[in-house]
Amino acid sequence: MARSETVTLTNMCMVVDGTRVLVQNRVDPDWSGYTFPGGHVEKGESFTDAVIREVREETGLTIQAPKLCGIKDWPEDDGSRYMVLLYRADRFTGTLASSGEGEVSWVELAELHTLPLADSMANMLRVFLEEDLSEQYYLRKPDGQWVEMLK
Amino acid sequence: MARSETVTLTNMCMVVDGTRVLVQNRVDPDWSGYTFPGGHVEKGESFTDAVIREVREETGLTIQAPKLCGIKDWPEDDGSRYMVLLYRADRFTGTLASSGEGEVSWVELAELHTLPLADSMANMLRVFLEEDLSEQYYLRKPDGQWVEMLK
Repeated sequence: MARSETVTLTNMCMVVDGTRVLVQNRVDPDWSGYTFPGGHVEKGESFTDAVIREVREETGLTIQAPKLCGIKDWPEDDGSRYMVLLYRADRFTGTLASSGEGEVSWVELAELHTLPLADSMANMLRVFLEEDLSEQYYLRKPDGQWVEMLK
Repeated sequence: MARSETVTLTNMCMVVDGTRVLVQNRVDPDWSGYTFPGGHVEKGESFTDAVIREVREETGLTIQAPKLCGIKDWPEDDGSRYMVLLYRADRFTGTLASSGEGEVSWVELAELHTLPLADSMANMLRVFLEEDLSEQYYLRKPDGQWVEMLK
């Protein structure tokens, strides 16, 4: 197909309950620390269905009407693009249950910065929260260093 | 790369000025009628940069801080996915100027339904406007008919 890219499609959701948010303490050695639940979008799966499924698998909760609020993305060295669709949800049913991805728990949003956050999570949080931001974009410079831009 | 898809990445932006929105009367015979400006994301381009560039090319206006608010997407028959990232922007500079894509003009949002809208635009508008919606998703049934779902 003309004008297409190879893309890895994933999602992440900030589940909100009043002043608290649902965090996951990720055990993945490639990206450990506190973050929000999420995962891969299956081929052909609706994006909304995918984030509802991932949150259910990783937290036991079934969210309603997740709202898309931003994207984290970067070009990989092989020319493909990695995308994380960022959602917020403040309505849910079910009972909290952790998965093998990491323990989940409620924390006060105002205290999130005191936790050992996963790499890049502090600025990703700004995209979740700030009306003027829709993207956390990374680009690798010729010297190999990644540059982060909030847009 | 594992777990990737072939994706066509595009965008569309509802530019808002008070009670009016900026429409484009598309001349493309494949998808004609009134819609909002937008176009293709270039390979490696940031999504925010892409929507700012497309709106500038098609309307003469430079938008600030476009906010992602939804996605229109569908699986194509070749197994790829087509994505339209939907943005809203209520701040801009510049002078209105149409492009070869179609004439652009301001119309009252409340009167938009009286125009000959492009196919699927009426429901796409709901994703732009309704807080509970983030996706306009299409799936082709075995009989070849497309089914539209708002999620």
